[in-house]
Amino acid sequence: MAGNTFGKIFKLTTFGESHGPAIGGIIDGCPAGLQLDLEAIQTELNRRKPGQSAIVTQRKEPDAVQFYSGIFEGETTGTPIGFVIHNSNQKSKDYSHIKDTFRPSHADFTYTEKYGVRDYRGGGRSSARETASRVVAGAIAKQLLKDIEVIAYVNSVGKIGLNKTYQEVDFSEIEKNPVRCPDAAKAQEMEAYIKQIRSEGDTVGGTVCGVIRNVPVGLGEPVFDKLHAELGKAMLSINAVKGFEYGSGFSGTVLKGSEHNDLFNEDGSTQTNLSGGIQGGISNGMDIYFTVAFKPVATIMQNQETINSKGEKVAMQGKGRHDPCVVPRAVPIVEAMAALTITDFMLQNTASKL
Amino acid sequence: MAGNTFGKIFKLTTFGESHGPAIGGIIDGCPAGLQLDLEAIQTELNRRKPGQSAIVTQRKEPDAVQFYSGIFEGETTGTPIGFVIHNSNQKSKDYSHIKDTFRPSHADFTYTEKYGVRDYRGGGRSSARETASRVVAGAIAKQLLKDIEVIAYVNSVGKIGLNKTYQEVDFSEIEKNPVRCPDAAKAQEMEAYIKQIRSEGDTVGGTVCGVIRNVPVGLGEPVFDKLHAELGKAMLSINAVKGFEYGSGFSGTVLKGSEHNDLFNEDGSTQTNLSGGIQGGISNGMDIYFTVAFKPVATIMQNQETINSKGEKVAMQGKGRHDPCVVPRAVPIVEAMAALTITDFMLQNTASKL
Amino acid sequence: MAGNTFGKIFKLTTFGESHGPAIGGIIDGCPAGLQLDLEAIQTELNRRKPGQSAIVTQRKEPDAVQFYSGIFEGETTGTPIGFVIHNSNQKSKDYSHIKDTFRPSHADFTYTEKYGVRDYRGGGRSSARETASRVVAGAIAKQLLKDIEVIAYVNSVGKIGLNKTYQEVDFSEIEKNPVRCPDAAKAQEMEAYIKQIRSEGDTVGGTVCGVIRNVPVGLGEPVFDKLHAELGKAMLSINAVKGFEYGSGFSGTVLKGSEHNDLFNEDGSTQTNLSGGIQGGISNGMDIYFTVAFKPVATIMQNQETINSKGEKVAMQGKGRHDPCVVPRAVPIVEAMAALTITDFMLQNTASKL
Amino acid sequence: MAGNTFGKIFKLTTFGESHGPAIGGIIDGCPAGLQLDLEAIQTELNRRKPGQSAIVTQRKEPDAVQFYSGIFEGETTGTPIGFVIHNSNQKSKDYSHIKDTFRPSHADFTYTEKYGVRDYRGGGRSSARETASRVVAGAIAKQLLKDIEVIAYVNSVGKIGLNKTYQEVDFSEIEKNPVRCPDAAKAQEMEAYIKQIRSEGDTVGGTVCGVIRNVPVGLGEPVFDKLHAELGKAMLSINAVKGFEYGSGFSGTVLKGSEHNDLFNEDGSTQTNLSGGIQGGISNGMDIYFTVAFKPVATIMQNQETINSKGEKVAMQGKGRHDPCVVPRAVPIVEAMAALTITDFMLQNTASKL
Repeated sequence: MAGNTFGKIFKLTTFGESHGPAIGGIIDGCPAGLQLDLEAIQTELNRRKPGQSAIVTQRKEPDAVQFYSGIFEGETTGTPIGFVIHNSNQKSKDYSHIKDTFRPSHADFTYTEKYGVRDYRGGGRSSARETASRVVAGAIAKQLLKDIEVIAYVNSVGKIGLNKTYQEVDFSEIEKNPVRCPDAAKAQEMEAYIKQIRSEGDTVGGTVCGVIRNVPVGLGEPVFDKLHAELGKAMLSINAVKGFEYGSGFSGTVLKGSEHNDLFNEDGSTQTNLSGGIQGGISNGMDIYFTVAFKPVATIMQNQETINSKGEKVAMQGKGRHDPCVVPRAVPIVEAMAALTITDFMLQNTASKL
Repeated sequence: MAGNTFGKIFKLTTFGESHGPAIGGIIDGCPAGLQLDLEAIQTELNRRKPGQSAIVTQRKEPDAVQFYSGIFEGETTGTPIGFVIHNSNQKSKDYSHIKDTFRPSHADFTYTEKYGVRDYRGGGRSSARETASRVVAGAIAKQLLKDIEVIAYVNSVGKIGLNKTYQEVDFSEIEKNPVRCPDAAKAQEMEAYIKQIRSEGDTVGGTVCGVIRNVPVGLGEPVFDKLHAELGKAMLSINAVKGFEYGSGFSGTVLKGSEHNDLFNEDGSTQTNLSGGIQGGISNGMDIYFTVAFKPVATIMQNQETINSKGEKVAMQGKGRHDPCVVPRAVPIVEAMAALTITDFMLQNTASKL
Repeated sequence: MAGNTFGKIFKLTTFGESHGPAIGGIIDGCPAGLQLDLEAIQTELNRRKPGQSAIVTQRKEPDAVQFYSGIFEGETTGTPIGFVIHNSNQKSKDYSHIKDTFRPSHADFTYTEKYGVRDYRGGGRSSARETASRVVAGAIAKQLLKDIEVIAYVNSVGKIGLNKTYQEVDFSEIEKNPVRCPDAAKAQEMEAYIKQIRSEGDTVGGTVCGVIRNVPVGLGEPVFDKLHAELGKAMLSINAVKGFEYGSGFSGTVLKGSEHNDLFNEDGSTQTNLSGGIQGGISNGMDIYFTVAFKPVATIMQNQETINSKGEKVAMQGKGRHDPCVVPRAVPIVEAMAALTITDFMLQNTASKL
Repeated sequence: MAGNTFGKIFKLTTFGESHGPAIGGIIDGCPAGLQLDLEAIQTELNRRKPGQSAIVTQRKEPDAVQFYSGIFEGETTGTPIGFVIHNSNQKSKDYSHIKDTFRPSHADFTYTEKYGVRDYRGGGRSSARETASRVVAGAIAKQLLKDIEVIAYVNSVGKIGLNKTYQEVDFSEIEKNPVRCPDAAKAQEMEAYIKQIRSEGDTVGGTVCGVIRNVPVGLGEPVFDKLHAELGKAMLSINAVKGFEYGSGFSGTVLKGSEHNDLFNEDGSTQTNLSGGIQGGISNGMDIYFTVAFKPVATIMQNQETINSKGEKVAMQGKGRHDPCVVPRAVPIVEAMAALTITDFMLQNTASKL
């Protein structure tokens, strides 16, 4: 019940705390016979890695993944893929100041209440460091997906929005700037803003858009496991996420049915795609697109008043190395979770009809 | 894998098509010893029932639930609760006109492609009629939750918004109008708008807000099964839902960390609640609140061009009895899914620590 | 967690007590496109039905199954198959004498302790009446299995054994006698013995053998979900079962490796089959065969001393209509559970390799 | 679906091949607040370790477990416990002779057919080396079980049987001899026989008995997840197991109901215990006892004819270091699987009634 597994057939189970000896996971249910590109997996990890640019946390971690099983002579064997990422940067003493302190809007209080005990070193299990394991599994999922493309990019940082639909941008621009916004001008504006926010010792939220192209018709399992329901859960399980919408999303609520309906072309495609590639919880072959809302990181470099485990008010100093804005590094995580979701539905769908 | 089960311990599995002989479900994992108020269950069903007011579909269904097992002398026995709601209104011939036609923005096309066959009578399994079974289970969940209150209400219809936070409204107003909006003036405005939309043969979307109060600290299972991730999935699994946000949601993305952090009071409660009652995926004892986006119903009383199963363009006449706006009847469904989610986490939490 | 679901992809969830209004279930995950032979399903139910011969319980139940969903124009649609069997014979007053009494070697005591409450009418949920739902699902599974044959027969009644291997008997004899033993002479002996046991107001145990033929290579999921592990669980979940063995079973433990190894033929088949058609938890294409041990039915028509819910010694009269020996009616149940197990593994195997 | 997870709440997922860099696993759902005795875990591993005595395989492996997460300052934290055992003895070249050869009664053929590819080094995933991970998790489960004792011992080796019930033996004798048979004289006889078998280059089967004492009333989840059904599955999932029986087992099938029924004492205990501590799938507080049948190890030091992957007959030489009889080392594995089963049911049972 402890919730560390994602997926039904292509199943990822993760372990690890931010300041323990290692994090890692087991992928069970990966079909045999997949020639793995290990370099591509490390490339995805590098996209999520701390220290990759001036606008992310400067914590240094090589984030090198080691595979322990499930791969033989470069190919998946159908047995579980165990992998480990050693934590090189375990400065546990950095965290003695928060041992008995509940940081505002962190999980310190809730973990302590739920479990009666907490690994207080840097967030422990609640740290987003855990998402590195997701990126490993997502990178393998991407290789299974072949022609199905999973793309994410930064859509807004604070109030600075891209203000373009995904059709209007050039995905090849995404990796050309540290913000991962596919618009050079906007990216610069966002980057400058993030630097300013950092200089204030503050943080800021943002949104990430995801697009999944070339999805075959038929993925998703009604009624509870609709494609967008699992995709939404996948996104909401990422640290700091506060909202999810797909297709027309919240803006679709103000439309009339006559405006919102996607009329068919003769080949089964649709003239518009307000449905976001999903009808009745099942992919219809059109692009799936969605937006994910990230709150500002709770760790700020400012003094805050908070409480300790005895319920006493204590002063708390901002300290440590943290992201001023999480969305640039969230991009590969969003992609990973989307890839895991789609892969699982693909494998589920092999048994849907005779 | 077919996705008709919700929950891990308190598990609901549903069956049934809109125009088959019956719909129903099995609740497995309900603890023994719960004195059931059967009338309260029927009351919830009546809140979802077609024909309940002038602004919803006029299809007539008594929606009377029959329990077949799991209850003895008024009390749950710990064995699975089987229940059935007979469909009284199976006018199958009404649907002959859509037998070979794929209605725009319905699941006709995707079901046919996924399964190779489709019960074309009125949406079959993809009909929101299935949600009656959820309301039955949710009503039982509510009785298990005792002091934990689950409340939902209509927050907007098209562009007409309530424009108040949940703290600013009086929940006792919700059931006083057919729209289920806790503001008499706004409700009237919404009602008039829905009637106008109907007279145009059109439909409109809207949003529903949910609030869960008196939640104990500690519910939710990191990392993948965070409370809000499961809650989001629960909501996104409801027909016509396009988005979900909780706490500060999408609007929280434009805030700074220094504005967004919820500072603690000495008792562990927080001064603000932008977190929405959840930190690190675990309830913190504050109110959980969220918003759900519903698209306009796809069935409109207007002529549309569409395609048939041979890929030929065909004209399609608007016909039948449908909701011009789904949100008034969605309120009890949102409550049911929220109650199921919280109940399941409560039962999961009994084994979290020694 | 309450354990009323069997299977991972082809999933059966059952409900119902022996003296409630109905029993039934939901099959989720049945592939679409299966033309169902409904008569064949009823035929299987009739093989399990009470009152079918002079050597089984004389309780009268038509055991007519009604399908509520998942089937359209005779074909499965991929949506959940809900079904119900109404209990016609609910003589609840028959059971007032055991309301506060714990019958020896029944589940009365354990249910009461576990759940704090018990439906005392005729065993309630612990009654083997529940297995009728398994037979319905198993009959559908058999139709999915097509060429894969699932056969069971009575191998012993008390000390009267068939003393032949499955290769030595003619399966077409099984249904020719009420015992379901594929040897006319032995069957008569067993029948006479059962009648004698009944006249003494007593009961007796026995064994049932199962054979699964034409199984493709590759079914079963190591390491925990080995084919024989799930098959064993399936059998052990049947009421009154005390043991399970497959292939060489317990008698294989006295052999040497040089005697036990199954040497290969050039086509991958084996010269002997002590492995029982399974190697490393995966089917190897040879016949799967197994034996299931059933204890004597606990309800005897003799007086016994027992205790009531207050822990007081009470005298208990044998009363009611019960099977003197369970194995003849267990045959279709064993087949059903075997069919469910194999079907589930077939569907799981669709995603094992690229 | 790939079956590498055991348990529903206390869940063990394992990974690793016999000749890969490491094996290991993740335990998810272990309650927080358990002070772990790490030495006791290593002690259990040592009981399973190769090379521990003259009658087991002489392969050398330190089998030292490393924990990567879920434990903080000696205590479980409620987060997943990741652990790894590095394989020190990876003499891969030893196995080149079987690269294209299917060993009789091994999983070589079935893995190759199922997955299209196989890690041929020493059995890969199908090797019993995987069970070391089970022993780690079982050792933690034992610490959770506190007063509930889980004991196993060797009951027979080939035709040499202990011929005593578990009540007649002294469990403190078990670890006093390398066979793990709680009868010094029989143990010597068995040991001599195993040595003789080894000198013949052969192997032999045997049986292991298990006893679980001080089990509270109420564990087990009817109807499919009966205590003995899961326990049987747990045992059948161990390499080389061919059968499982509990309580009166196969010998109970020849008894009459009047002989088999366990009459109650006034305190709810029973005068006899042919039920084996379980009624209706739920523990009744009496001792749970069972027997597990192990076939002879398939790897023999004799020449055998077999086939290669092209279906050609090839000669095969016996070679390598293997157990002449698996039961002495199986004892801690049986205990581990029993402990995992009971622990999971204990945690499941926390939500069975109000």
